[in-house]
Amino acid sequence: MAKQLTSRKDNYSQWYNDLVVKADLAENSAVRGSMVIKPYGYAIWEKMQSVLDGMFKDTGHQNAYFPLFIPKSFFSKEASHVEGFAKECAVVTHYRLKNDENGKIVVDDDAKLEEELIVRPTSETIIWDTYRKWVQSYRDLPVLVNQWANVVRWEMRTRLFLRTAEFLWQEGHTAHATESEALEEAEKMVGVYADFAEKFMGVPVLQGVKSPNERFAGAVETYCIEALMQDGKALQAGTSHFLGQNFAKAFDVKFVSRENQQEYVWATSWGVSTRLIGALIMAHSDDNGLVLPPRIAPIQVVIVPIFKNEEQLKSISEYVEGIVDELKARNISVKFDDRDTQKPGFKFAEWELKGVPVRLAIGPRDLENGTIEVARRDTLEKETLQVTNIGEKIDNLLIQIQDNIFQKALSFREDNTFNADTWEEFTQRIEQGGFVLAHWDGTSETEQLIKDKTKATIRVIPIDNRMEEGKCILTGNPSQQRVVFAKAY
Amino acid sequence: MAKQLTSRKDNYSQWYNDLVVKADLAENSAVRGSMVIKPYGYAIWEKMQSVLDGMFKDTGHQNAYFPLFIPKSFFSKEASHVEGFAKECAVVTHYRLKNDENGKIVVDDDAKLEEELIVRPTSETIIWDTYRKWVQSYRDLPVLVNQWANVVRWEMRTRLFLRTAEFLWQEGHTAHATESEALEEAEKMVGVYADFAEKFMGVPVLQGVKSPNERFAGAVETYCIEALMQDGKALQAGTSHFLGQNFAKAFDVKFVSRENQQEYVWATSWGVSTRLIGALIMAHSDDNGLVLPPRIAPIQVVIVPIFKNEEQLKSISEYVEGIVDELKARNISVKFDDRDTQKPGFKFAEWELKGVPVRLAIGPRDLENGTIEVARRDTLEKETLQVTNIGEKIDNLLIQIQDNIFQKALSFREDNTFNADTWEEFTQRIEQGGFVLAHWDGTSETEQLIKDKTKATIRVIPIDNRMEEGKCILTGNPSQQRVVFAKAY
Repeated sequence: MAKQLTSRKDNYSQWYNDLVVKADLAENSAVRGSMVIKPYGYAIWEKMQSVLDGMFKDTGHQNAYFPLFIPKSFFSKEASHVEGFAKECAVVTHYRLKNDENGKIVVDDDAKLEEELIVRPTSETIIWDTYRKWVQSYRDLPVLVNQWANVVRWEMRTRLFLRTAEFLWQEGHTAHATESEALEEAEKMVGVYADFAEKFMGVPVLQGVKSPNERFAGAVETYCIEALMQDGKALQAGTSHFLGQNFAKAFDVKFVSRENQQEYVWATSWGVSTRLIGALIMAHSDDNGLVLPPRIAPIQVVIVPIFKNEEQLKSISEYVEGIVDELKARNISVKFDDRDTQKPGFKFAEWELKGVPVRLAIGPRDLENGTIEVARRDTLEKETLQVTNIGEKIDNLLIQIQDNIFQKALSFREDNTFNADTWEEFTQRIEQGGFVLAHWDGTSETEQLIKDKTKATIRVIPIDNRMEEGKCILTGNPSQQRVVFAKAY
Repeated sequence: MAKQLTSRKDNYSQWYNDLVVKADLAENSAVRGSMVIKPYGYAIWEKMQSVLDGMFKDTGHQNAYFPLFIPKSFFSKEASHVEGFAKECAVVTHYRLKNDENGKIVVDDDAKLEEELIVRPTSETIIWDTYRKWVQSYRDLPVLVNQWANVVRWEMRTRLFLRTAEFLWQEGHTAHATESEALEEAEKMVGVYADFAEKFMGVPVLQGVKSPNERFAGAVETYCIEALMQDGKALQAGTSHFLGQNFAKAFDVKFVSRENQQEYVWATSWGVSTRLIGALIMAHSDDNGLVLPPRIAPIQVVIVPIFKNEEQLKSISEYVEGIVDELKARNISVKFDDRDTQKPGFKFAEWELKGVPVRLAIGPRDLENGTIEVARRDTLEKETLQVTNIGEKIDNLLIQIQDNIFQKALSFREDNTFNADTWEEFTQRIEQGGFVLAHWDGTSETEQLIKDKTKATIRVIPIDNRMEEGKCILTGNPSQQRVVFAKAY
């Protein structure tokens, strides 16, 4: 088969790119840094959106939509926010093109904007400018709003799904009357992300807070989930920020409290993006291609007929009809690949590449024996089963596969999580990859020094972290807890 | 109640704006021409998206996502397309901001793009540049892809939902091996739009083709659906374009046919946008507010308790629980408005303003009698019903309301559709509003002259139009059919 991948061992980064392109997930576009998300990749995103959107609504949120463009001046209003974002953004300066004297299309200098517009890198500023109009009284609170949108951050070095100039995401922006309610919201939403990652994507995650150096620009506290990829690098899979009153003060959003006092509103924001697809790929896939957990797979079961002539295909198709009905009745998404332009071997490889969790193969002998060949994508195991109660059997198998994928990723993370107590041990472990738990003296300077020396950053300070006396891995200064270091995407 | 609307008679345009803002559908943002779609308005869009997305998938389409930015040079490749779009677009010229010597945020002149990027006004160019890579053989065809996205067209005079600089839409872009297949696709999709408008939005539409003057920039034929608003103006609610081989030639998209010939691919594109929400409002709503057809209403039934004390509310709540369960079991979306901060009269007016199709009111006497007060939003009629089988009763009522809303709009259109046979009659009819069926000599020049004199345009040349001999309303030249004129949004 022509679509063979580079192996992970030979070149992990090349393997990733091969897989994304050959499994028809995404490709680079003519616009530097912007990707095209192809139908199969987008179908995965739709599954993620659908599950997450349900979780957001179940926790009381509603969707809305805010403008793509943000006036430049808005970025100056929250000091640390501008530092974090203004440096890497697309700037709209004109609103018209025209033909020049040679008939060439040029920007019309007469159509220059008085104030430049920034293509949103994130929407705190435009949203808090809007909330000023929405919130007057404690009765207007909380505001629990999410938006599904595209955002742009100018990136010099891009990788499909992981880092692109434009990407798709959701951003929740909530407004609360009290600090404790906002903190609770930020914690609740990182919990939603952890649940989604583990139960749907099959990706185990560490949950906790970021160190000040890694905090979102404008946040008081950043909660996050961190996953470990197969090459031993960490990937931040979702963040939830407690923004304090920073944006309320910057955009003058006050409310009259129950006690009839004017107070600033408390804020959170939280988001996950198409980056999750990158995490999904790197957590589970193998040298044969994508491995999708059933709960996120656009196609859960593919059926491949083995036939030599049209008559055989016809009998198999009739046999398959009942199976398809049985699976669909259980809400299992199934595709019958009855193309006569490709051989079964080609189809097997193609669906393996695309990570379909279960493949059923049916030949003339199966019709005689009432059997069916069942192949699991996660373990590549095959067995021949009686076709009776096939719906229930496949349902159970999908549950097993979902669980196995998660357990495998969890074992991998456990096998690649280490304590380090000396600088030498630390640098060696970091070099080898994985999560490294080490003491740190709690200062930004030390964190930065460690990063400069090893490229490792503090990925997360876990929730309910165990307290223990220790000495900072670099400075030897006293420390009360280990934090999680790793090199990261 | 503070939220009273301007009446339609007094000022239709003000009525529309009042309604959009006061029913919490949308509002103007800090960015000129860009709106904020508020949660209630966005919930209507979500309902529309969900239905349309299902219809697209049922007709074999898949979703994908293409870049927001389009290189300027792409617009020059299809000659008539650039004429139609390049004049009104947002241009990205820089990719960085910086602090100037005074600490002010300014555009960094060192970060000027070599080639400017256009924020997509529509995506034919970037998509056909992509399809060149996707299509080599007839086996790769058809490509049946849709995207849900935001687009930007710089507009000087904007109105919420109807005309905004940024709006949300879907754009289907398909590629076919033959002309007839592409034509069939374009016709099929305008049919899908007509079905959606009539069966879900309750808006009757005329289906047909545009005259050359009103065609999409780059299309060979533009199919459309046209609806009539309550002020007698037409609104184009959806278009589907047969693009011939124009974009395939501009972007060099060829395929090897079954006969082993290199041929250019045939194209269609089709789209509807958040403008549909404007159509929905203007087709059905009244001086009390929004009137939503049940199949598009985010909340189909609201239940308002009438109580004097907490004890009464408690008994009513228990009574309501069973009703809510019964409605939910039938997939009816229901809200129990048990706020104790507002009086029933306020709630009645609020839900009327928001167009909820059915309002149930329950007081202590209803508990004794096993009754419930049912009010229809469309007719404002009220009746008291026995609560037994309330689920079935409401289900039937919702069907009646859906039908009544459509029939009412259909009668309105019939009452406001006229033949005109002289220029005087024509200009008078156009002035009064409505669809005016008149003969036209078939030339662009005449169409333009009529527009200059009356502001009326040819909205549609209906499918299966009756042929009849006649004379052009303006020039007296011979004509074979009447076409539909109106002033339009």
